[in-house]
This record gives sequence, C-alpha cells and structure tokens, in this order.
Amino acid sequence: MGTPQELERLFSPKSIALIGASNSIDKWGGFVSLHILKGGYKGKLFPVNPRHEHILGLPAYPTIADIPEPVDLGIVMVPADKVPEVIEEAGKKGIGGLVVITSGFSEVGADGAELERRSVEIAKSHGVRIVGPNTMGILNTYINLYAIGASVFPLCGCISFISQSGNLGTQMLLWAEKEGVGVDQFFGTGNEADITTIELLRYLARRESTRVILLYMEGIDDGRKLYEVLSETTRKKPVVVLKAGRTGAGARAALSHTGAMAGQADIFEAALRQAGCIVVKNPTDLLDMAVAFSYLPLPRGDGVAVCTLGGGWGVVASDLLIESGLELPPLDDEVISKLDKLLPPFWSRANPVDLVGQADLHIFTTSLHALLEPDYIDAVLTMGAFGSDEFMMRIADAAAELIPEITEKEAGEVKKFAAAIQREFMLETLNAMEQKGKPILGVSMSPRAKLVYNLNNKTLILFPTPERAVKALKGLYQYHRYISRVK
Amino acid sequence: MGTPQELERLFSPKSIALIGASNSIDKWGGFVSLHILKGGYKGKLFPVNPRHEHILGLPAYPTIADIPEPVDLGIVMVPADKVPEVIEEAGKKGIGGLVVITSGFSEVGADGAELERRSVEIAKSHGVRIVGPNTMGILNTYINLYAIGASVFPLCGCISFISQSGNLGTQMLLWAEKEGVGVDQFFGTGNEADITTIELLRYLARRESTRVILLYMEGIDDGRKLYEVLSETTRKKPVVVLKAGRTGAGARAALSHTGAMAGQADIFEAALRQAGCIVVKNPTDLLDMAVAFSYLPLPRGDGVAVCTLGGGWGVVASDLLIESGLELPPLDDEVISKLDKLLPPFWSRANPVDLVGQADLHIFTTSLHALLEPDYIDAVLTMGAFGSDEFMMRIADAAAELIPEITEKEAGEVKKFAAAIQREFMLETLNAMEQKGKPILGVSMSPRAKLVYNLNNKTLILFPTPERAVKALKGLYQYHRYISRVK
Repeated sequence: MGTPQELERLFSPKSIALIGASNSIDKWGGFVSLHILKGGYKGKLFPVNPRHEHILGLPAYPTIADIPEPVDLGIVMVPADKVPEVIEEAGKKGIGGLVVITSGFSEVGADGAELERRSVEIAKSHGVRIVGPNTMGILNTYINLYAIGASVFPLCGCISFISQSGNLGTQMLLWAEKEGVGVDQFFGTGNEADITTIELLRYLARRESTRVILLYMEGIDDGRKLYEVLSETTRKKPVVVLKAGRTGAGARAALSHTGAMAGQADIFEAALRQAGCIVVKNPTDLLDMAVAFSYLPLPRGDGVAVCTLGGGWGVVASDLLIESGLELPPLDDEVISKLDKLLPPFWSRANPVDLVGQADLHIFTTSLHALLEPDYIDAVLTMGAFGSDEFMMRIADAAAELIPEITEKEAGEVKKFAAAIQREFMLETLNAMEQKGKPILGVSMSPRAKLVYNLNNKTLILFPTPERAVKALKGLYQYHRYISRVK
Repeated sequence: MGTPQELERLFSPKSIALIGASNSIDKWGGFVSLHILKGGYKGKLFPVNPRHEHILGLPAYPTIADIPEPVDLGIVMVPADKVPEVIEEAGKKGIGGLVVITSGFSEVGADGAELERRSVEIAKSHGVRIVGPNTMGILNTYINLYAIGASVFPLCGCISFISQSGNLGTQMLLWAEKEGVGVDQFFGTGNEADITTIELLRYLARRESTRVILLYMEGIDDGRKLYEVLSETTRKKPVVVLKAGRTGAGARAALSHTGAMAGQADIFEAALRQAGCIVVKNPTDLLDMAVAFSYLPLPRGDGVAVCTLGGGWGVVASDLLIESGLELPPLDDEVISKLDKLLPPFWSRANPVDLVGQADLHIFTTSLHALLEPDYIDAVLTMGAFGSDEFMMRIADAAAELIPEITEKEAGEVKKFAAAIQREFMLETLNAMEQKGKPILGVSMSPRAKLVYNLNNKTLILFPTPERAVKALKGLYQYHRYISRVK
C-alpha cells in the first residue's frame, strides 16, 4: 500500500510520457493519446515512439530515457510482451507510476498471468506503481486529464468512480457527460496487479475534492479489508456500490471477465450495507445516487410531501414512496390553511398536494415553503412545474404558424415568459432548499431535460421520472440513518 | 354500453364541431383547437363561437344549429354551466358524441356532481355519447386527430392507451413522440360519466389497428366486469396495466383525484395477472412494454443468451436476468465450437458471451445466429455493438481537429464507416429475428439513441439500459406463458 504522496504524484501528474503513442486512430496508442490531448491536459506531454518524429503534432522521443525532463506518470500502450522492458526503463527514468492500458495479461490465461507477475516484480523493484494492466484508463478532471480509451469528457465535479469494468465505467462517464454530472476522478482498475480497489478507496477517502465515491465491483480478494476500508470511508463521505456477480450466472461471468471471486451475494450485500454503503442494482442508479449526494442535503427523517400539477402523478409518486419504505405524513391544519389561501376550494387538503391548474410561480413557491416548514416533513418531491414550458413553447410555435390573429412577436413573448418562469421555478427551489436545509426532489419529464442545471453558481438537479427521484431520496435517507448511528 | 358502430362514429369522425373554440391560446378552447389543426385532422372542422367570424383562420358558427353539414363528434370547451345546453343542442343536431374537455363536475364536489348527473341525463335522452367530462382529450392518429389539451404528436402506430389521468397520459404520449413510438388511439377517460374504461377496453379489443393496449388505472366501480373484459381482451392482444393507488397513501390520493375506489391492492393485482394482464409499477415500464409487444416476437421459453462487447455488461445483465426469473442456459459444444472460430482463444466459452475486442459485423452477425439456433435459447440480449459508433464519431472529429497527419476527408470516411456499420448491425438483427422467430433485445447506450428505429419498412427497437430490456423481456415471456395456457 503506497503513501498518499506516492499516489498523489501518480494521479495528479505534472508531466506524462505517452509510451507507445501513435498517429493511427484505430490503435489504442492513437486514441488514448488523442483523448489526453483533446481533454486539454494542463501538464507536459512526452510521446514516446521510435518510428516518428512527431505524434499528434507533438515532438516524439525514441525512448523513455530520451525525455529531457522529469516524468511523473507514464501511459503504457505498447504490446504486452514489451511491457516488462517499458517498466524497467520507466523505473530507471524515475517515473512515479504507470497506467498500463495494454491487455493480454492474466485475463487471457496462464502465459499472460506469468507476464503480469514478472511486470509487477520489475515495477516493485523500482518503486514504480501500476494501474492495470488491462485498464481502460484514468481521469483527473481537475488537471483536465482524460487518459482513457473512450471519448468521454464529463465536467469537473465532486464524484469519483472506481470501476472494475472498463466498458461499464466509460458508459457511466458518457452518461455523466450527457446529463451535466461533474466528475472528479475515475479509475478503471483493470487486473489490479498492483494498485487495488481497496487502495484507491483509501486514497479517495482522503481526497478533499471527492465528496461522493462510486464503486462498480465484481469481486475482491480480501473481503475483511474491504469491509474495514469501506466502514472508515463511509463515515467521511457516501460510497455507492454496484456489486455485480450477485447471481450464479453473474458470478460465473465475473470470474471469466476479471477473474474475480464474486462471493456469496446476500452475505456480501449485507456486509456492504453494514459498512454504510448505499447498494444499488442498476448502473443508472449509480449515477442518480451520485448526483443526489452531490447536490442535495440529507433528509433528517422519512416524511415526504408530494406536490404535483396533475393528480395522476401524485398517486403514482405516493405509491412509489410508500413501496420504497418512505412515508407521506398527513398535513396539519396550519399547512392546510396556508394552502387554502392559494388553491381552489376543491383541492385535496391532503398529502400528496395537487396544485391543480396551471404552473403559477406564486402558488409553486408559497406551497413549497409551506410544505417544507413543519418538522414532520423531511423532503419534498415536486413534479409538473418543471418541464411545463415544453408545452407552452409548442403551443406558441403552433399559434404563430396557424392562427392568423397571432403574430410572431406575440408568440415569442409567450416563449420568453415560459422560459423565464422555468428559471424562476429553479431559483425558488434552490432558495427554499437552502433556507430550510431539506432536500427538494424535482422531476422534469421534458424531452429536453437533463439531470444537472447550473444557475447563479448553484446546482439544481431534476430527475427524469418519479421512480428515479424516489430511489435517490431513499438512498439519501439510508445514508442519513447510517451517519446518525455511527457518529 | 354502445354498439361498435356508435363508438366508431365517435372515435373516427368525418366531421367535428369545436364547441367553444377560441383564438386565445391561454384558453382550453384555444389550445385544444390549435392541436387539432396542427395535427392535420383529415375531416371537416366547424368552430362554434358566437363572438367571432373566424377562429384559427376557419369560418366560425354562432351556434351548433348553424353548422350547415352533419357532425359526427363535438369537442366541448365551454364553461361547465354551459355544458348541459351544449349537449341539448348537440343532441338536436344529431351529433354522435361529445368529448367534454370542460372541468368543474363531480371532481369539484356535490354541485359539480349534480351538474354531471344532469348532463349525462340529457345526453342519454338524445343518444349522445360522452367522453369525460374533465378529460384531457382523445387521439386517433389514423385520421390525424389530436384532440387533446397538450401539444403531443406521436406517430401513427399500433399501441392504444386508456388513461384515467390526463397529465400522466399526455406525458406518456410525449415520451412516445420523443422515442419514435407509434400510437393508434388515446383516451383520457376523465370522470367517466358515460363512456367508461370498460367500454373502451371492449372497443379496443375489437379494433384491428390496435395490437397492444395500455391502461393507466386508479380504480374502477365494477371489478367483476373489468375482470371479464380484460380476460377476453388479453386472449386477443396484450394489455399492459399500471394500477396506481396500490398503497394507502396512493389510494387516498386516487380517491381525491378521480374519486376512484382503489380497492385492495394485492387482490386487485392478482386479479389483473390472472386476467392475463402485464402489470407494471412505473410509467416508463408502460411504454417499454408497449414497444416490446409491438415489435418483438414472443419468446417461447425463459432461456436467454447474453452477448456483449465488454465483460462488465455481461455480468450486470446476467444478474438482472436471473433476478427477474429468467435463465441463462449453458452453451452446448456445437455453439461453442462455432464461436471458437470467431473469438480469441481466451473467450469465456460460456453464456454470457463477451465478444471481446471491437465491434465487427461478421463476428456480431455470426454469433447472433449461432446463439439463436439452439432450442434452449428463446431470446438474445445484445449490448455494446449498438451505439459504438458514438465513440468512433468522436474520435474521428477529435483527430481531424488535433492530428496534423489526419485530414478532414479521412476523418469523414471513418464517420461514414461507423454510421454504415451501425445500420448493418440493425439490419442483421432484424434479419436474424425474422429468420429465427425469436426476440433480440438490443441495448444502445448512446446519448443519441431512441427506442424505435425504422429501416427498410421494418422496425427495430433498442433499449437505453439493460434493466429496461430485461423487464421488457420478462413481460413478453409472461404473456407467452399466459397465451399458451389459455389457448
């Protein structure tokens, strides 16, 4: 297990050697290097390739030894049989660590395993740390480092992700990019011949810019140590885990994929929960939980108020909340009398609250504050207001096209108003959340919606469906209970 | 209960009176009329409004009696207190039926309930059928009829949808539009003062262009009749049901929303299943199941082969399949030897099959056929190939921008190739499915993916996540079992 300084040098490098860099974009040495360049890495890059003077427009060096400056990290993209000698040269150069993208090691059989053993031996003798081999790569968005096999460029943020699958990891990063979710670091752990999931967890637990840790795991050698590290880490920050290989078929697939022993699923899951992890079953849930932990306060209890435009959604959301083990407390007279002043006489007078009618800023904001006020309400789920602009925009466009009495200018004003009121809904939601310190889970079902919105240096999240909002809220509440117990 | 001809006249009208049509797009009489116009309704439209000579550019009539031609259907958008006299006039004119959009009836209390009772009485005395009141509207895409309160314009297709919530219904239609899902008819049932969910089910059971029925239901008066109608209908075509108001909180909300008695949830759900319905819990699942039933053959058993690019996804998909009650049968020697010829020596030799390496058309197609061949495989789940073009496109763009040695033209060729191979993946999947008569569930996690693709007059569906594909497959299998049992 390395010192924090050792890993810091490796994962926040000031200079990188691209060993096996290539101008051919159908080769790993080509596209991984291209992604580093495209990402705008803030340090120095030294392509190493004996056959070209320039790689990706940068001066190339025939060997590692030829690089005229110190190098913190090497990205290794040479064929497998060349890897031991690259490690040797890297050691002599004083490189702190290597991300070995190259595959063809223990994952392909006994010969590969021997090559891997030999590589690690050489690395250890020189004090060179290794990520991989057979890794998809790493990200550190704080220094614009995208050293990875897939073209994914999520924004900088506070979520770090350790993945025992490269493809699953990069897919998650692609979703993060699409939804505007900010990422701090990513590690494809590959074969974990040297640096393991456990060591990375310990490293991220200490990293200040990481506020949430995601873990995709197929299996682990030392279950006891994993439990210890997770128990320590979850006291500092939430850890969301997708444990794959839960079933016989899944476990056999995991064994064949990463050679991981999946272990007995129910015991494993119970241990993860006891260690304070939030355990999810779908990759989508990993991202949703990460976003919820990044941008929402924790609810201090299980009482949820539901506020909708349209009764059907209130019924659906109520079912989902109750079925997930949360509660919809009845409203007291004070809250009801506040809402009486806003809503038509036939409103439900109960939780869920159907705001009936159209999206109105005053009604939306006032009812949000009224619902957040009582002690027995720990969170609000709101749907219908967000995304309602979609319909207004469409009506305005159709009117400009088809109604002779309506001018382009009038239609444009309707659209401007619709956009402005959406922005106000968002800002008022952020204000209310800040004032009351309770989470508000917004749902926007607009086709143009995304998970994360940045306004006035604040961040609002909107879930695309009620079921995803409910799952996320459940996770927040679980973590609140855990933290209250252990602190 | 009406005759089929009666409802046919109402729901496939040759002419429509827009009663209470308006040029103000912030009024229901404005935007509902606008949507009918925008949708391109194929019949004749007669706006009725005493204060304007033209509405939406069409000549308007002061009263219903002034319309110079026969009228099949009226869309009613006048204030609630005017509805009884509108029904009277419609009856005298010989209009077959009215879609009463207007709210303010039984959903707002005793006075409204009395108004509703009186309205239905008048309608019955004239033989005028009523949808609603308090309905979001109806669609019949075969005649381009979008008589609905929200701007949603899904394509024409084979799915019909009965919804006891207008907002939930229109949201589903918006999703359908976004994902390219074809819809036949939609009914917001509103207060069901005359035409009920049960009557609509019976009507859709007979309608040839409807191949799948979706039902969002909060409650029903006559459970026994519902059971009978559903049992008859499911023998002809699949019915997918989201029953809301399952929990105490949900049921109370439903009572307040539509006045529906939700009934005892577990008994209700058991009855729905026994009647052959596919029961789902989330609105998203409604749409996914509809699409699966529309475009995939039914699996004849529970044996699934998983085929991925990237091991992690195979592990995740295997877990999800097993946890949902499906099976991953081991592969026999014949299949393994076929795959041996395609794959590197270290491939897993097991189900799930990891195709390792890059997306290759020959490997993809040959392995698909090999996996579909044996009797013990009833369906294939494939992920990784679809959407892989996203990464190639991005690499090509970055290369054109950053690598001096690579020209725009070369990058363009890479992109053309990537697009072409995606198309081939799709066509080969459709071919294989047609040849073998077994469903192939593709997953594409590209940010640009949608559910439904049309190629060469065939339709391919791709799910955005493995969990949604697995749920859909499970639903198909359930329906297969039901149909085998009752036929």
